[in-house]
Amino acid sequence: MPESPNRRKFLKAAALAAGVANAQEQQGQQPAAPDDPTKLPGVPTRAYGERSRFEKTVRTPTPQGTSSGAPLQDLNGIITPSSLHFERHHSGVPDIDPRRHRLMIHGMVDRPLVLTMDELKRFPSVSRIYVMECSGNGFRSKGVGTVQQSHGLVSCSEWTGVPLALLLREAAVQKGATWIVAEGSDAAKMTRSVPMAKAMNDVLLAYGQNGEALRPEQGYPLRLFVPGWEGNISIKWLRRIKVVDQPYMTREETSKYTDLLPDGKARQFTFEMDPKSLITFPSGGHKLPAPGFYEISGLAWSGRGAIRRVEVSTDGGRTWQDAKLQTPVLPIAFTRFNFGWKWDGGEVVLQSRCTDERGDVQPTLEELVKARGDHWGYHFNAIQSWKISADGSVHNALA
Amino acid sequence: MPESPNRRKFLKAAALAAGVANAQEQQGQQPAAPDDPTKLPGVPTRAYGERSRFEKTVRTPTPQGTSSGAPLQDLNGIITPSSLHFERHHSGVPDIDPRRHRLMIHGMVDRPLVLTMDELKRFPSVSRIYVMECSGNGFRSKGVGTVQQSHGLVSCSEWTGVPLALLLREAAVQKGATWIVAEGSDAAKMTRSVPMAKAMNDVLLAYGQNGEALRPEQGYPLRLFVPGWEGNISIKWLRRIKVVDQPYMTREETSKYTDLLPDGKARQFTFEMDPKSLITFPSGGHKLPAPGFYEISGLAWSGRGAIRRVEVSTDGGRTWQDAKLQTPVLPIAFTRFNFGWKWDGGEVVLQSRCTDERGDVQPTLEELVKARGDHWGYHFNAIQSWKISADGSVHNALA
Repeated sequence: MPESPNRRKFLKAAALAAGVANAQEQQGQQPAAPDDPTKLPGVPTRAYGERSRFEKTVRTPTPQGTSSGAPLQDLNGIITPSSLHFERHHSGVPDIDPRRHRLMIHGMVDRPLVLTMDELKRFPSVSRIYVMECSGNGFRSKGVGTVQQSHGLVSCSEWTGVPLALLLREAAVQKGATWIVAEGSDAAKMTRSVPMAKAMNDVLLAYGQNGEALRPEQGYPLRLFVPGWEGNISIKWLRRIKVVDQPYMTREETSKYTDLLPDGKARQFTFEMDPKSLITFPSGGHKLPAPGFYEISGLAWSGRGAIRRVEVSTDGGRTWQDAKLQTPVLPIAFTRFNFGWKWDGGEVVLQSRCTDERGDVQPTLEELVKARGDHWGYHFNAIQSWKISADGSVHNALA
Repeated sequence: MPESPNRRKFLKAAALAAGVANAQEQQGQQPAAPDDPTKLPGVPTRAYGERSRFEKTVRTPTPQGTSSGAPLQDLNGIITPSSLHFERHHSGVPDIDPRRHRLMIHGMVDRPLVLTMDELKRFPSVSRIYVMECSGNGFRSKGVGTVQQSHGLVSCSEWTGVPLALLLREAAVQKGATWIVAEGSDAAKMTRSVPMAKAMNDVLLAYGQNGEALRPEQGYPLRLFVPGWEGNISIKWLRRIKVVDQPYMTREETSKYTDLLPDGKARQFTFEMDPKSLITFPSGGHKLPAPGFYEISGLAWSGRGAIRRVEVSTDGGRTWQDAKLQTPVLPIAFTRFNFGWKWDGGEVVLQSRCTDERGDVQPTLEELVKARGDHWGYHFNAIQSWKISADGSVHNALA
């Protein structure tokens, strides 16, 4: 078929358009979306989906590059998308072939086990929506700009795994065994001790996150998951569990991740994460366009169970009102709270504080310092303050 | 600094290794993971994470390419990862710039509205974990191989959006208005009618999915979300809501997505999705390696509320036993059920059936055909059967 002038014209225009799009992409500019998307057919579905090219929010690494905060200011609901879950590693993210990965359970047991991932997945599993927080989350938060930078080392996912208790029973733990030591297969060989009572209670050998396999940054193909306890005890890239009769006083539970008290002694093992809440909207870096109605929104959680109450102050802590808790309110999980508020355009300080099912209340910074002195940084759960200036800009106002 | 022989040797070896890796990648082979990941540092965290290169499960499109099923046989828990959420489109996935997207609410209202995405997000929002099912899910399931192929058009996410009722009140709906018509901005201009009572009840203008923005395949930047009702009424790429006094009898609620009854008439509007359950392990395509203990696992849901009970039969429906429901059991959401079972190595047929909070029980295929005749295909919720042969292979046994 000879080419018609129209077809030649079309091809020329198409080539030109493709050239422009290509040039835009090479310059890092994206081609514009069509003015009216109904005028042309869309694209097929991808086998494994990606987000819209217009969405740009990302995890932001600390200057050392060894931890990255979740963009809490941009997230909705209680599930953190796996691609944006906070991350902390001690020697990079290892590349692990799940077909060659093994979990060994040994030490004070009658029947040592070495399991493939397929063998592990044969055991009954459970899935639970749980929060995970780095014990260092928030401790550099004075004056830091955004909630992602100050408090981003916390996230919440649905985790799936085999109860560790099942495998410990399978291995037949010997009398006198009171702890386990878990070891990762990263280059840091991250190692932590866990008391047997916790190991036999709710600890998971987790291989799933938000429905699919764990992400590499979260320990693919296998991690320990220790609900409600400081994040680093949930050893990632888990390869070994040794059953023992004492804590092993590893680097990450002695020289690091401990809290120095005023008398120079360290608190020995601060496992449970305290109740904490954060207003994520409005928060540092946001700008309110004008006085008027806003819905304040935020997150609360506790390592000790469910959140029972969240209060919001719009006057820097002088008066408090109950926020609305969004259902479901699950134990050891993010609880989203909301609070309708009319901004009159004046300077205000917004705060939130939560109470968990044990009655523990999130403290002020002053109360925390009074209790623990000033030589600590981990397990920081002070009430966070956001100052809104008359121009609508929002800044971290933690004193 | 002159190059040492050692350095030259190293560089040569490195270049060789890089060449091998490159050749492997060009042939579609991946470089092998290290034998011992602890012997070398890992890689940095990505700003927006991806899954492990060893994970391969994907959505599989139908031959027409207009719908893709979620790999239910590979998923854990109740949250479907957004990248694997099922998808159905009528004219491809449009490319929409959220800064230029508008939602118009007009028709029988006193104050027509045109909103930007930023304006919409100023309104109070809610997040809810909800199932979404295509009304055509399962209707070609006779003899089809895997649960993904037969029943993959269902998924469950945490959806975030503004209650439509808020905006309808803002627009001031006029007396006599009894329906709304919602229109998408895809090339099909998907259009459906929704009764006002439902619109004022729990319908969302959804912009969030699993914590982040909706995925393009799910209607980015905005979709209607009509909890518990057949999927296509939750208009994606939503651009317009017209308030009207009757249903508009659009193509997708008359010639398509209706059920033909034995007398030649169609059921007019079958909105709610009936209770349904599926065993996802073991299911078609799985192979049990040997007789022994297995945990049967599956999903149940109902468009009418929460699941109250799931029973499992391991003898083709002669006897039934209660499965264990995993918490949280949420209304109009996936409920994961589990059932410990010992396979003796003989041929068996596995089934599940669920009962929802209204007492509605999932029917057998025979009961469905008796009630509706045999000229229909949508809203198919018959009990599914998986036959396990003596060699451990699992096949679809729906008669």
